[in-house]
Amino acid sequence: MTNDNEASAPLGAGETIETTLNFSPRFGPDGLIPAIVTDLRSGDVLMFAHMNDTALSKTLTTGLAHFWSRSRAKLWMKGEESGNLLRVGEIRTDCDQDVIWLAVNVEGDGVACHTGERSCFYRRLVGGADRPDQTALEIAALPHPRSRD
Amino acid sequence: MTNDNEASAPLGAGETIETTLNFSPRFGPDGLIPAIVTDLRSGDVLMFAHMNDTALSKTLTTGLAHFWSRSRAKLWMKGEESGNLLRVGEIRTDCDQDVIWLAVNVEGDGVACHTGERSCFYRRLVGGADRPDQTALEIAALPHPRSRD
Repeated sequence: MTNDNEASAPLGAGETIETTLNFSPRFGPDGLIPAIVTDLRSGDVLMFAHMNDTALSKTLTTGLAHFWSRSRAKLWMKGEESGNLLRVGEIRTDCDQDVIWLAVNVEGDGVACHTGERSCFYRRLVGGADRPDQTALEIAALPHPRSRD
Repeated sequence: MTNDNEASAPLGAGETIETTLNFSPRFGPDGLIPAIVTDLRSGDVLMFAHMNDTALSKTLTTGLAHFWSRSRAKLWMKGEESGNLLRVGEIRTDCDQDVIWLAVNVEGDGVACHTGERSCFYRRLVGGADRPDQTALEIAALPHPRSRD
C-alpha cells in the first residue's frame, strides 16, 4: 500500500519501488513498518506487529523475529521470555516495500500469542449482521481446515 | 498487538478484549485498522491495507472487501475498476482486536496486486546479509510451495 514516505535506498535508472530488486524498506512517519507473521508450514497468520530499523536488522542478523513494542516502547525479541522464538524461514516484502511478511517456525511450545493460543487470530466473526456492532465472535482455533499439518 | 485506544464496544463483567465474544474492533488514532488479506484456499498473503469504520461495515454488508485508501483519502472497493473483487470467505480478528484478517477468493483474473501480480508479496529477501541495505530481493511468485492449489 502506498504511503507518503520516501524509499530508504536509492532506485536505479528506470526502476520503481515495485520493480527494484534492492531491498528498500519504507518505514512510516513513526519509524515503523508493519510485519505480518505466518506459519511456514500451514500458512496460517500467527500475529501482526511492527518493526523499527533495528528490529529488522536484528531479525536479518539472527534469523529470529524481533519487533518494536509500541506499548512498551522497546525492542523485543519475540519469545525471549516464553521460549517461543520465531525462527524465520522466509521474508517477503510487498509491492510498495512498506510491509514485511515473515514465514516462521515457532519454537518452544509452538505458541505465538501472549494468551497461550497458537495464533493471535483465534476468533472469527459469525452471523449475517451487516454492522460491526451487531457482529459476534466465536472461538475457532487454528490450524484452519485448509492447513496441511 | 496492544495500542492505546479504547475498545469500541463495552466489555461484559470479567471480560477482557482478549476473551470477549463481542466484536469490538479497535481503530487507531487515525480511525483505521490494519487488514491482512490472504487467499482462502492457499493461505498465501495477498495484500495488506487499512479499513475505516465504513470500509469494515461495507465489507460485512456486501461480502466484498472494502478499504480506506490513505494515499487517495477515499473509500475503496478492491477491484471496483479491475473486476478483481475480493469475496470474503472468513474474517478473523486478533487477541487485541486491533487487526483484521480477511480470507478471500479473488474474482476476475485472480490478481490482487495493482502491478498485475497475484499477490503484492512477489519478492523475497535473499542472501546472508545482516543489514537491510546489504540485502537483495528476488522475484518469487506465489503460490508458495506449501500451497495446496
